[in-house]
Amino acid sequence: MKQKNKVKENNKKQIEQKKEKVAVSVGRTNKKSLKVRFLGGVGEIGKNMTALEYGKDIIVIDAGITFPGDNMPGVDLVIPDVTYLEQNKSRIRGLIITHGHEDHIGSIPYVMRDFNAPIFGTKLTLTLIENKLKEHKLNEVSLNCVKPGSVIKLGCFSIEFINVNHSIAGAVGLSITTPVGVVFHSGDFKIDFTPVNGETMDLSRISEIGKKGVLLMMADSTNIEIDGTTMSESVVKDTLDHVFADNLKKRLIIATFASNVHRLQQILDLAVKYKRKVAFSGRSMINIAEAASKIGELKIPDGLIIDIEKTKSFKDNQILIVSTGTQGEPMSALTRMASGEFNKVEIGKNDTVVISASVIPGNEKMIYGVINNLYRLGADVIYESLEPIHVSGHACRGELKVLHSLVKPKFFIPVHGEYRHLKKHANLAQSVGMKESNIVIAEIGDTVELTDKTIKFGEKFKAGSRFVDGVGIDGEDSFVLRDRIHLSEDGLVVVVVGVDEFSAQLTSLEIIGKGLVFSDSMISEAKANVTNTLSRIDLRTVRDESELAGIIRRSIKNYIYKATKKNPMILPVVMVV
Amino acid sequence: MKQKNKVKENNKKQIEQKKEKVAVSVGRTNKKSLKVRFLGGVGEIGKNMTALEYGKDIIVIDAGITFPGDNMPGVDLVIPDVTYLEQNKSRIRGLIITHGHEDHIGSIPYVMRDFNAPIFGTKLTLTLIENKLKEHKLNEVSLNCVKPGSVIKLGCFSIEFINVNHSIAGAVGLSITTPVGVVFHSGDFKIDFTPVNGETMDLSRISEIGKKGVLLMMADSTNIEIDGTTMSESVVKDTLDHVFADNLKKRLIIATFASNVHRLQQILDLAVKYKRKVAFSGRSMINIAEAASKIGELKIPDGLIIDIEKTKSFKDNQILIVSTGTQGEPMSALTRMASGEFNKVEIGKNDTVVISASVIPGNEKMIYGVINNLYRLGADVIYESLEPIHVSGHACRGELKVLHSLVKPKFFIPVHGEYRHLKKHANLAQSVGMKESNIVIAEIGDTVELTDKTIKFGEKFKAGSRFVDGVGIDGEDSFVLRDRIHLSEDGLVVVVVGVDEFSAQLTSLEIIGKGLVFSDSMISEAKANVTNTLSRIDLRTVRDESELAGIIRRSIKNYIYKATKKNPMILPVVMVV
Repeated sequence: MKQKNKVKENNKKQIEQKKEKVAVSVGRTNKKSLKVRFLGGVGEIGKNMTALEYGKDIIVIDAGITFPGDNMPGVDLVIPDVTYLEQNKSRIRGLIITHGHEDHIGSIPYVMRDFNAPIFGTKLTLTLIENKLKEHKLNEVSLNCVKPGSVIKLGCFSIEFINVNHSIAGAVGLSITTPVGVVFHSGDFKIDFTPVNGETMDLSRISEIGKKGVLLMMADSTNIEIDGTTMSESVVKDTLDHVFADNLKKRLIIATFASNVHRLQQILDLAVKYKRKVAFSGRSMINIAEAASKIGELKIPDGLIIDIEKTKSFKDNQILIVSTGTQGEPMSALTRMASGEFNKVEIGKNDTVVISASVIPGNEKMIYGVINNLYRLGADVIYESLEPIHVSGHACRGELKVLHSLVKPKFFIPVHGEYRHLKKHANLAQSVGMKESNIVIAEIGDTVELTDKTIKFGEKFKAGSRFVDGVGIDGEDSFVLRDRIHLSEDGLVVVVVGVDEFSAQLTSLEIIGKGLVFSDSMISEAKANVTNTLSRIDLRTVRDESELAGIIRRSIKNYIYKATKKNPMILPVVMVV
Repeated sequence: MKQKNKVKENNKKQIEQKKEKVAVSVGRTNKKSLKVRFLGGVGEIGKNMTALEYGKDIIVIDAGITFPGDNMPGVDLVIPDVTYLEQNKSRIRGLIITHGHEDHIGSIPYVMRDFNAPIFGTKLTLTLIENKLKEHKLNEVSLNCVKPGSVIKLGCFSIEFINVNHSIAGAVGLSITTPVGVVFHSGDFKIDFTPVNGETMDLSRISEIGKKGVLLMMADSTNIEIDGTTMSESVVKDTLDHVFADNLKKRLIIATFASNVHRLQQILDLAVKYKRKVAFSGRSMINIAEAASKIGELKIPDGLIIDIEKTKSFKDNQILIVSTGTQGEPMSALTRMASGEFNKVEIGKNDTVVISASVIPGNEKMIYGVINNLYRLGADVIYESLEPIHVSGHACRGELKVLHSLVKPKFFIPVHGEYRHLKKHANLAQSVGMKESNIVIAEIGDTVELTDKTIKFGEKFKAGSRFVDGVGIDGEDSFVLRDRIHLSEDGLVVVVVGVDEFSAQLTSLEIIGKGLVFSDSMISEAKANVTNTLSRIDLRTVRDESELAGIIRRSIKNYIYKATKKNPMILPVVMVV
């Protein structure tokens, strides 16, 4: 942990040094160029939020969150730093959402609060946004439903929505006509030739757009390290069908992402086939299933769903429980089942649990903890990526080559990935014929400027992350976080000193250590250390409390490091009484 | 982070509840049974330390460490809780080390300090232990060198060492003859038919031992989820040879584990073939290369090695740098190169960096951070498991089946893995013919008792982890750690209150928030809250400082939760003046 944080701090330092060299300028517009601005996000570039800007018009693509990393203890969410947009509020013509995953919609309630810009998205996307806005009691937002094929005009931009496949229904790519040329943005995508809802990514429209000429492509780099093509979502049904067939006598529990409506549809279809009743478990599962069914994205036969409370009145082999918790989230239904804390479902030898999802990096320990506990309770667990009980929602190298060959852009900016992914996507673009000089790898805070003939870096601007922590929102370089990490690694020592106003004598001394291996004898020695230090100076010569606090801090800091080899936070409090 | 810790706490609670049901008894001996005791370690069972006990004799197998997880902020190392051994010191006949990796030798300086038991291991293993003891200024330990084929007697136990293959030289399995039968312990192993030093795992000896009859086998479960067999270490040489051939004009930097002496040998051989000088980078790389070369495990031709300082006077294509830092360790040479902080090696476009290691789970973000930075500096990086630039040191399912079929034990305890691995290894044992009732999956703190005919759980005993933190060592259920996690997630508020001894009036009030989004106006409100609370009670009726502190804590806790939705640690300090 300590080491991890240090490396992060190093990286951050570097990045900050880079930034310092560039003056932050605001709203300076070169009327003849299109500006692509990479706002917010941690780790992945161009994922949570991107803005296009021409003249006085700005459109924003996506407004997502990142989940906090190990170096952000106590933080609830990481949202983009939208200082630039705040300073250019009046120029924002709209927010376009490519699909309804958290990393694309999660920050809407925080960052769009006072932008007053209309939001555009497909049916399911808007349904999920609506739920989110309701939770935050935001009712004034203008939500506008679009369909694949729709074209909308926002300022000088005209945006066409194009159907793509992904691990959520209603995902779209964007073809944006700008005064300098067409920008094609893939969004998160894969090419599924046998999608559950029958609607394959609209390759023929993309091909037409490509033929007319695309100035710039931005495309998903998530799976750039994987050769070949991503399996179709419908493959999962075959595998799950085997699981149902192999477990005819057992109760089945399938954990999956609530938002993967097509996966859910396949699971419900199998429940019908194998004559099992379905109980949903987990609030987000129930909410999303309801919402998706209401708008017709999910077809639930009458009488299929029962309340989780009622499962006990059925035989094990008549029940399928569909649950949240694929990532081992502590409060999720599956995690509580595994630790025996979920009184509605008691796990035992007659259960087979399927985790139909991949492990999001960083969640390994949590999810394996859940799996270990399920085994301890006697259940069988199916979770390996050995069996295709989950498929990715992102294009692999083969599909990316198809996209590049159809769109044939003049310029290319790889997005949706860490730097290493973008670099490899750039290499792939070169391998299919692009010139290296026509490819730009951007970072968060970069502006890329385009004319119909050129691409170059423009100004750096203030971008990055803000932390949502309780009800507070704090900046990226937050002291709060630095203090938390310091406290978590080395603990703290509070030294309270009472000094008599008239005699300038030490009247009382209290030392408290927390988060530190700090014995009573060490505390006594630390007290002696402070008393000793103060006895050697004439307190009347000390200017004020803060100078005295400094003297105490230095003295006790040295003592404690010698005694414990730790550098706790030292909090001296001087009370003149 | 918050969530992760919660899940860990939940798991821990469960385990503690389990433990509570069983009285801890010490040293009760049933003379007629062999006891296998699973001491220490986190996550993996039977890895860091195991003890065999019969009558008055105890032998200990391995004494390793675990690296601290995200829920152990600030902790340097996790060592086994050896309370049981401390209470039975005089019965310990010896410590047997299977190989020189940290998870098998790392806790020797801490736990063996006053056991005064002789240590047995092969040449390289002892060399690594010796280095470690020197660092800790422990000179009194008795180190005894054994070879594969050696047999030693310790009390009623007779231990034969058997050559196995692993990702470090000098790894052995153990065949331990006890009064109730033979115990076969695989250690960490794989079967390499083309090992770099020519010495294949001694399958024929294992087969003989199996024929004579093995009562109990304990075997490595690390790779139980992987089908087939592990690739030979010598495969790496072929891949690396291609890398050398493809990068004739560039400088090469290869990062690898210092302790993988055979890997190092292959890399040095390739440097000779491609006429490059070799510079070692990183303290552990230099130390281990020196030690291994001194005992003849590593053959370094004269004139091959140059000082890292001198690399600048050679052309790029004449240089190979062999570095530590495969896991993105913050202070390692590679990490510092990647962040431009290592003045001896400046990374640029003419560098190809090979990371010849797999990512240890939990280190993903660190190592990918390093890779991203290397790409930013223009280097090419080869790190995918796509190319076999690294092979595992552990047996896959195919090899495990070979082991089971040769040893044919009566009883089986899968070890070296999380519960899910052990469960799958138990299933594999059944698939090759073992009865379910002859297989026991143990957890840390379990005793398994064997006679020549029976296997069963014995008493639970105090076992688990201790944390090394600075110079202090703390128990597993440490308040220190709980406080650190609390501080890291919610921060703290210190409230210092001065009360006049005679008038019982509030004379001074100071409130300090750290690690909390806590504005000046909130501090004023918090002060008003405390003042208000105290004005409503007659301080003369308050029994003592701690009662008053309690009143203040409750009052301000509620206020702060309402204001921030956080629950910081509240530290009230009452000074009667």
